[in-house]
Amino acid sequence: MPRRTIEEFRREREEGQARLTAHNHLGLNRFLRLDSAAYEDGALPGKTKELLGLTASTVLRCNDCIDYHLEGCVKAGYTKDQIIDALNVALVVGGSIVIPHLRHAAQSLDELLAEQR
Amino acid sequence: MPRRTIEEFRREREEGQARLTAHNHLGLNRFLRLDSAAYEDGALPGKTKELLGLTASTVLRCNDCIDYHLEGCVKAGYTKDQIIDALNVALVVGGSIVIPHLRHAAQSLDELLAEQR
Amino acid sequence: MPRRTIEEFRREREEGQARLTAHNHLGLNRFLRLDSAAYEDGALPGKTKELLGLTASTVLRCNDCIDYHLEGCVKAGYTKDQIIDALNVALVVGGSIVIPHLRHAAQSLDELLAEQR
Amino acid sequence: MPRRTIEEFRREREEGQARLTAHNHLGLNRFLRLDSAAYEDGALPGKTKELLGLTASTVLRCNDCIDYHLEGCVKAGYTKDQIIDALNVALVVGGSIVIPHLRHAAQSLDELLAEQR
Amino acid sequence: MPRRTIEEFRREREEGQARLTAHNHLGLNRFLRLDSAAYEDGALPGKTKELLGLTASTVLRCNDCIDYHLEGCVKAGYTKDQIIDALNVALVVGGSIVIPHLRHAAQSLDELLAEQR
Amino acid sequence: MPRRTIEEFRREREEGQARLTAHNHLGLNRFLRLDSAAYEDGALPGKTKELLGLTASTVLRCNDCIDYHLEGCVKAGYTKDQIIDALNVALVVGGSIVIPHLRHAAQSLDELLAEQR
Repeated sequence: MPRRTIEEFRREREEGQARLTAHNHLGLNRFLRLDSAAYEDGALPGKTKELLGLTASTVLRCNDCIDYHLEGCVKAGYTKDQIIDALNVALVVGGSIVIPHLRHAAQSLDELLAEQR
Repeated sequence: MPRRTIEEFRREREEGQARLTAHNHLGLNRFLRLDSAAYEDGALPGKTKELLGLTASTVLRCNDCIDYHLEGCVKAGYTKDQIIDALNVALVVGGSIVIPHLRHAAQSLDELLAEQR
Repeated sequence: MPRRTIEEFRREREEGQARLTAHNHLGLNRFLRLDSAAYEDGALPGKTKELLGLTASTVLRCNDCIDYHLEGCVKAGYTKDQIIDALNVALVVGGSIVIPHLRHAAQSLDELLAEQR
Repeated sequence: MPRRTIEEFRREREEGQARLTAHNHLGLNRFLRLDSAAYEDGALPGKTKELLGLTASTVLRCNDCIDYHLEGCVKAGYTKDQIIDALNVALVVGGSIVIPHLRHAAQSLDELLAEQR
Repeated sequence: MPRRTIEEFRREREEGQARLTAHNHLGLNRFLRLDSAAYEDGALPGKTKELLGLTASTVLRCNDCIDYHLEGCVKAGYTKDQIIDALNVALVVGGSIVIPHLRHAAQSLDELLAEQR
Repeated sequence: MPRRTIEEFRREREEGQARLTAHNHLGLNRFLRLDSAAYEDGALPGKTKELLGLTASTVLRCNDCIDYHLEGCVKAGYTKDQIIDALNVALVVGGSIVIPHLRHAAQSLDELLAEQR
């Protein structure tokens, strides 16, 4: 069972979001917009909030959410060491149950950084 | 990594349940019966409780449990719009961390509705 | 340490919500409105969604959220037996870790029903 | 807000369980019996399973469940050091979010051991 | 049942931590040091990681952990608006089940800011 | 989508851990050592703590962590019936949401026991 790549995640996510918004459920579509808006510049810069999203996703142990925010963090210009330092906070808060998600994140991070070069 | 279909889920679930009950652990087998019984008609109709099971499974973020109760909800006669409305409650209660499971559920729901036609 | 009554919960909740909305954070205030809207009549009746909210709150083990939706369920006209039947679904899905919250809910339910008489 | 003592927990729990069983919900009452039965001697000694219950309750962060199993562990004859060693497994698995529950458990454990003398 | 103040939380936490370290469990004491170290300056500034700790604590819904990191965030110099903006990320990720903890956090934040004046 | 075997899990885990430690993040590497140390003989035998790790992993619903501790439990000499008895505690504590992970665990356990013969 080969690992889902970042590229596959992007395609699946895009299709899935299209499928969700196609239902035209007013509340659901408003939630999706509220979700995007939460990471835009506000009292805190969007860049900082992307890192908050990554940490929250990691302690809640959701690989899709981790990949989504990892991509945002790489785009925002965080270095590999800075991202690992954020993941370490998630590890300490969330415990060893988080480790399989760190293994996933470490591989996604390598793929994302390879794309940038 | 193609998505597991509803048909594959059914087969895997059936095999897995058989494997579990084969252990003849009295407590475990009693739990499995108690689990089935919880969705039968009682003070509330079974149909309503199937929807409760779907919402609980969604906020707890378990795709297998979501698929199991989605199938029950479709069999019980809920429309697509009603099921999406229930999933929206789960989204508001459980937050954006639930979204990947909504993407999964939306595709399962389409497969289940296609089977009915 | 006497148990917080439903009456105290209502007062604390009202003060707390006022404190939250007073920050005038656009996203936060939109979320609070989206939360209320999720339980209004839609493809599913609001009454059904109140029960979904109760079950979701119970498996996620939040006493304040349980009390909030218990009040909604009693107002919507569910009987004691129907509410217990919904809580039983939450117990089976969520396991014995939910039991302390059922004890809390059972006492809140008695207070809410006593108010109605 | 003084801490709830073990003695108060016992009284509240007893009243709450009586209130729950009084509803005569067949499924709920069966679940309560299944819960007790899970900690009786079986393929594993009940003593070992009490420790499993403590660890599970700690990583799921439920103080009432922790106190219930701490009492069982003390009755079963585990020493203070052994119980702390089990709680350390829960800390490593569950992370720093578990620490407030360890503070609670440490005080409950002292109360329970003081009763034995 | 009056709310536990920040001052009471500090006293209880200090006593509890002393009680935990007094057990001289090597692993447990090492974990407590690792926990402190995670928020010191590293690849990311400690100030940023304090905000990560607050968000992680909020989505995992632990009031003691929220208060601990709120205090750290206020000491680190974040403004009220910035802290609310971080809590909004936690709300969107974690959903309405987080709201009772936002009410708690908003009151703690007011107490902490009042101390600074 | 064929199930990941125990053999594949071992390979993926080894590669992932190597990738994580290669970052040379002091805190992260210390956590990984603390994690291993928690299951060594102490006030409780390592064998008992392996079973605590399995139960904690099951109620927290992490298949990778379940497989890791199942392997430890089989190596430590627990019988199939004893392991199922521990998983039953996890089922009662964690509820039906745990069942898909029991199906996974039952198959992993059969693979691990087949290796021993």
